[in-house]
Amino acid sequence: MIVLGIDPGYAIVGWGVLRYEGSRFTTIAYGAILTDADMDFSRRLEHIYDRMCAICAKYQPDAVSVEQLFFTTNQKTAIKVAEARGVIMLAVRKYEIPFFEYTPLQVKQSVVGYGKAIKSQVMEMTRQVLHLEKVPKPDDTADALAVAICHAHCAGSRIFW
Amino acid sequence: MIVLGIDPGYAIVGWGVLRYEGSRFTTIAYGAILTDADMDFSRRLEHIYDRMCAICAKYQPDAVSVEQLFFTTNQKTAIKVAEARGVIMLAVRKYEIPFFEYTPLQVKQSVVGYGKAIKSQVMEMTRQVLHLEKVPKPDDTADALAVAICHAHCAGSRIFW
Repeated sequence: MIVLGIDPGYAIVGWGVLRYEGSRFTTIAYGAILTDADMDFSRRLEHIYDRMCAICAKYQPDAVSVEQLFFTTNQKTAIKVAEARGVIMLAVRKYEIPFFEYTPLQVKQSVVGYGKAIKSQVMEMTRQVLHLEKVPKPDDTADALAVAICHAHCAGSRIFW
Repeated sequence: MIVLGIDPGYAIVGWGVLRYEGSRFTTIAYGAILTDADMDFSRRLEHIYDRMCAICAKYQPDAVSVEQLFFTTNQKTAIKVAEARGVIMLAVRKYEIPFFEYTPLQVKQSVVGYGKAIKSQVMEMTRQVLHLEKVPKPDDTADALAVAICHAHCAGSRIFW
């Protein structure tokens, strides 16, 4: 199974593609889509959509895994993140790839083993599971890989997969 | 000038197209994009995107006008509305139509004449300005027409238009 994990945003979209077979992970590719703050916002959305389509076309994942969005204090930022999330979902839909969402708690439990793990623990465990020399940068990319691992673990235990 | 007003949502997207020339409005078309609650959410986004593209292609507006999004108590709904808003912005961008946002206060001031107008006053004034027999239904469509009027008034007073 090939899983594409995504950490949505409008300035940075982290992404990572993994293969999960027989309880073993292989890292296929990862990176970040960056958009310039000087760009018109709708142009930023278009760039994210085009790049997401290119990633889906290239790696042809069996599933896309994304963390659920929870809003905090900055509503203006949160609205923009959700708008970017919308165009990401549209790109995934275009390629007819099933879309799965997980809570931060599920990601932590799945990657580290317990839900109160701190961010650095999630990142270090992501690095170990994927046999990487360093934790990928930016953090958004590491987060995307973590949510991809989460889906692989969860889907791997589903009898219907 | 042809203005497309939009009231974003994921279950109902209100829209309305107006012509504004020499301080006079002509109503070209209006309606609502509806998506079924039984549909997968990404499928709903796709339907909204496809229909928005079709509306932009058909009416070729000079400007798109949308009310700014403010979040209230139901964050889950608000996230979904913002996701739908993202794909609407993407469709508008695809047709290279300038995108304008107005606050609810601006819409009320522009349509009714004062910012504390209640919803029914905005709707009735929208009906009168557009020489319509009845207030269009659903409310989302009337709201879309109101924000289109708002842009026409605001843009009409800009010397660079």
